[in-house]
Amino acid sequence: MFASQHEEFMRRAMQVARRALASGEVPVGCVVVQEGRVIGQGHNQRETLQDPSAHAEMIAITAAATHLGSWRLENTRLYVTLEPCPMCAGAIILARIPEVYFGAYDPKAGCCGTLMNLLEDPRFNHQSVVCGGILADECGALLTDFFRNIRNASGSAENNELTSR
Amino acid sequence: MFASQHEEFMRRAMQVARRALASGEVPVGCVVVQEGRVIGQGHNQRETLQDPSAHAEMIAITAAATHLGSWRLENTRLYVTLEPCPMCAGAIILARIPEVYFGAYDPKAGCCGTLMNLLEDPRFNHQSVVCGGILADECGALLTDFFRNIRNASGSAENNELTSR
Repeated sequence: MFASQHEEFMRRAMQVARRALASGEVPVGCVVVQEGRVIGQGHNQRETLQDPSAHAEMIAITAAATHLGSWRLENTRLYVTLEPCPMCAGAIILARIPEVYFGAYDPKAGCCGTLMNLLEDPRFNHQSVVCGGILADECGALLTDFFRNIRNASGSAENNELTSR
Repeated sequence: MFASQHEEFMRRAMQVARRALASGEVPVGCVVVQEGRVIGQGHNQRETLQDPSAHAEMIAITAAATHLGSWRLENTRLYVTLEPCPMCAGAIILARIPEVYFGAYDPKAGCCGTLMNLLEDPRFNHQSVVCGGILADECGALLTDFFRNIRNASGSAENNELTSR
């Protein structure tokens, strides 16, 4: 697949991420793709659902599994605007997703290359090919703009609670 | 809390695990406890729901968050019959569960002491106290009996697919 096609799907994930903004959620978006079609998508909904597991990737994975009628997401690619955390990396392993592409690196909780790389750990019964940094600046800008607006609105220089998903 | 009280809640988790058997699911069960009361529970439902993320812990955590109306599971304890995998350990971190007790160790995917210990990794923004091996033999027997029955029924000496959740 050409790089431009990866960027096309990352832009789709960014579109999904922007939907999180309307409900005040940290803007992270994800799409699961099979044979060039989006079969599942999700954006972060932790606050809306008051569910700690409602990350973009989890919602997109469950949607894709529902679409396929199978928990095995074979022959799929996952695109997400932010490097997956341990929970989402674990779900990717369990779903046996072969390829993962992410945008911005996450220095606080990224487990697909930053703090560790769960997706390429040979001790698990599945490994995914992972490629980070796709449209990283644009994906990261979604997040930095969001947190800047929060800080400006609150008049606070720091808001640690809201700088993490 | 006295050891006997931890065993009491682990027995509750085992009771929940047995519900998985009726639907042919790998018997893993989980309860989330606050102030001595179970506020969320779940058993593995991967096959029934065809959802790769439908582990016992995920279902119990979402149920507890729904009960509390908050994604922050503060002042809670999680009891699960099998050592959590990366996904479930990640969800425990995100939910900020202070204490985790598990039964059997998982040599294939356990990430709370066996392959790694995500719950006590100081790089994440939350750490949980974790204690494994509570009623480990009984919790493990639930699993080994299940897989033995599967093998006997299939007439196969090995069934790798079914020896993992």
